[in-house]
Amino acid sequence: MTVYSYLTHLECSRCGHEYESEHLQTVSACCGKPLLARYDLARARREWRRSSLAGREASMWRYHEMLPAQSEAEVVSLGEGMTPLLACPRLGGALGFAGARVLVKDEGQNPTGSFKARGMSAAVSRARALGARALAAPSAGNAAAALAAYAARAGLPAFLFMPEDAQESAKVQVAALGAQLYLIKGLINDAGALVAALKEERSWFDVATLKEPYRAEGKKTMGYELAEQLGWRLPDAILYPAGGGTGMVGMWKAFEELEALGWIDGRRPRMMIVQAEGCAPLVRAFHQGDEYAAPWQDAETLAGGLRVPAAIGDFLILRAVRESGGTALAVSDAEMLEAARLLASTEGIFTGPEGAAPLAAYRKLLADGTLQPEEEVVLFNTGSGLLNLEQFPVQAPVLRPGERP
Amino acid sequence: MTVYSYLTHLECSRCGHEYESEHLQTVSACCGKPLLARYDLARARREWRRSSLAGREASMWRYHEMLPAQSEAEVVSLGEGMTPLLACPRLGGALGFAGARVLVKDEGQNPTGSFKARGMSAAVSRARALGARALAAPSAGNAAAALAAYAARAGLPAFLFMPEDAQESAKVQVAALGAQLYLIKGLINDAGALVAALKEERSWFDVATLKEPYRAEGKKTMGYELAEQLGWRLPDAILYPAGGGTGMVGMWKAFEELEALGWIDGRRPRMMIVQAEGCAPLVRAFHQGDEYAAPWQDAETLAGGLRVPAAIGDFLILRAVRESGGTALAVSDAEMLEAARLLASTEGIFTGPEGAAPLAAYRKLLADGTLQPEEEVVLFNTGSGLLNLEQFPVQAPVLRPGERP
Repeated sequence: MTVYSYLTHLECSRCGHEYESEHLQTVSACCGKPLLARYDLARARREWRRSSLAGREASMWRYHEMLPAQSEAEVVSLGEGMTPLLACPRLGGALGFAGARVLVKDEGQNPTGSFKARGMSAAVSRARALGARALAAPSAGNAAAALAAYAARAGLPAFLFMPEDAQESAKVQVAALGAQLYLIKGLINDAGALVAALKEERSWFDVATLKEPYRAEGKKTMGYELAEQLGWRLPDAILYPAGGGTGMVGMWKAFEELEALGWIDGRRPRMMIVQAEGCAPLVRAFHQGDEYAAPWQDAETLAGGLRVPAAIGDFLILRAVRESGGTALAVSDAEMLEAARLLASTEGIFTGPEGAAPLAAYRKLLADGTLQPEEEVVLFNTGSGLLNLEQFPVQAPVLRPGERP
Repeated sequence: MTVYSYLTHLECSRCGHEYESEHLQTVSACCGKPLLARYDLARARREWRRSSLAGREASMWRYHEMLPAQSEAEVVSLGEGMTPLLACPRLGGALGFAGARVLVKDEGQNPTGSFKARGMSAAVSRARALGARALAAPSAGNAAAALAAYAARAGLPAFLFMPEDAQESAKVQVAALGAQLYLIKGLINDAGALVAALKEERSWFDVATLKEPYRAEGKKTMGYELAEQLGWRLPDAILYPAGGGTGMVGMWKAFEELEALGWIDGRRPRMMIVQAEGCAPLVRAFHQGDEYAAPWQDAETLAGGLRVPAAIGDFLILRAVRESGGTALAVSDAEMLEAARLLASTEGIFTGPEGAAPLAAYRKLLADGTLQPEEEVVLFNTGSGLLNLEQFPVQAPVLRPGERP
């Protein structure tokens, strides 16, 4: 008999207390911290071969044995994942380091245009299976679009609370996808407070990041794919733009699982997180040696996905960065936009500012010697530039009929 | 020794005259019609097994034996293709035909957000390999974005000529991707005339649709994928939004090749093309029994991809529709937008108006009995709704702080 998922239980990410996984769960009752999904890795190691992946569909659910859905019927999918890992041979030269070994994992090719699709596919699958009748979240951007899409796909109503000045592409997607959108004259925390105040009486399940256990499980598949796409090894370093940081937490967990499965060895990439100069709580905490990150005051950056003053998974992110011998650094808005134009014009990969932040950081880390051009580095583009068209004003000559350029 | 590509030569699509494939070619010198790529199918049938696909990357280049690039080094790729084929179990019910067997092939998950990526990946690969030093095209939309992306990826300059009122997302992508953009105070044919007038003196290679042989080769991979994703069989009908119609021509060619390879049998889907009521030259020609389609006067539709008054491959499209026992029909702009909202809110798939046109047509064809709900139908979404945000105005309540919905 083949096992669809080796999920066994949930575990408090702080103290390790166990929770069962077949009821809707939020954060841990013991510590109020994120719950992590745990699998029977020993059994999976005996039974599950990586050769089984060869004929499977090109989505993140190819790794369903290490995902939480209990059957294929439970899965709510739009084909998310298995995004391209693109070698970028000319990028090094453009940075003054010809031959630098750099690749881009292009998450912009996911449904709804960002890596948020992975997390919502997993979270909505589980929420529906475990009895949620309506979903809600506060969001300033791409998570809202992803939740709206997966809720529609699941046949569940979704309620999204966004600041009035939230990213236009997210508002449009949410509305077009048939979710109930409320715009708030206020900030993202006002939106979060409203969801918290209403969710009990309205029977909404809150899928805000790391407030339920499964978005991180979806995002961890970025780590599985990286290993598979590189032939079951990992790069020397990963540069990741960290807002809530769930992707980083998820990938670090994926590498542990892959080693436990016997599919990779014990070597790990240096995990490097990139934030915006105007909102860098994790960078500050990393350099101060703090276990937790104090909230950032007056966060300001045009990269909406990085405008996250406090991340509930802060200690998990910082732990992964430190255990891996990685680092944390901030880049300016101008550096992100310049990097976006460089990546687009040099390699044809069109990103938003968040997705370009790792390239801006890579340039700095090459310059200061933290990274060597011989080291294989993967930059994560977390979202398509199509989500942020307003960041890229067009200047072009206009020709009258008969006029030649 | 394994063969990377079984390409042998090119052939005039009208008279069958042969041309060689290792120089840059445009249309046939004999008839001025599109050239089709031909492969050594007999040899491929002996040597190439479909089981070889299992471990390959999830892009259209998994079928490289039947694509024109002569080596992996020649390929200019951003990971295009192998897009999801999504079963849509609730869509039938929403149309009043519960249980209808309908799937959506979601081309919006390609690089640059549309199926145009496939064609440009193949065309730019070949153009660079055969010596083109600069690429040019007139375009009102997504083809421009795709050309800009693949030219950048190839390290070639690109010159795009677009009407001043062209789709914003395309203008932004072209500019951000570092191509030279010119905006024309005029229509797409003015843009085309300017490219034609300049290309000799500027040494630009013109990659306008079907004016070179390989965009159709890229697009045919939609047919290969459909067969592979369905387990080497084809659906009962395919509904495809036809502007230039290269996708339809390409898929029909793919099915012939797949049968010659022995990978599918002789059964074919009914091929059905969908156009806009305000620009339906192929629909008119189909119903009049014409071999060629007369140009449409005063074309007007909000679906930019369907605003194609004259298609150079008209006779090839009409032939495929007729040989397959298919049909051709037009839908209104309002029907497209309504279908887009229905598909988004029912199944979580956010399309532009072009990509929703097949659903609008499917509704009509179910209603008039041309299609039965038991028939398996694939609707092609050719592009993401992110390319057309302006078509989906947001109406949402705005809450003041402390206000409850």
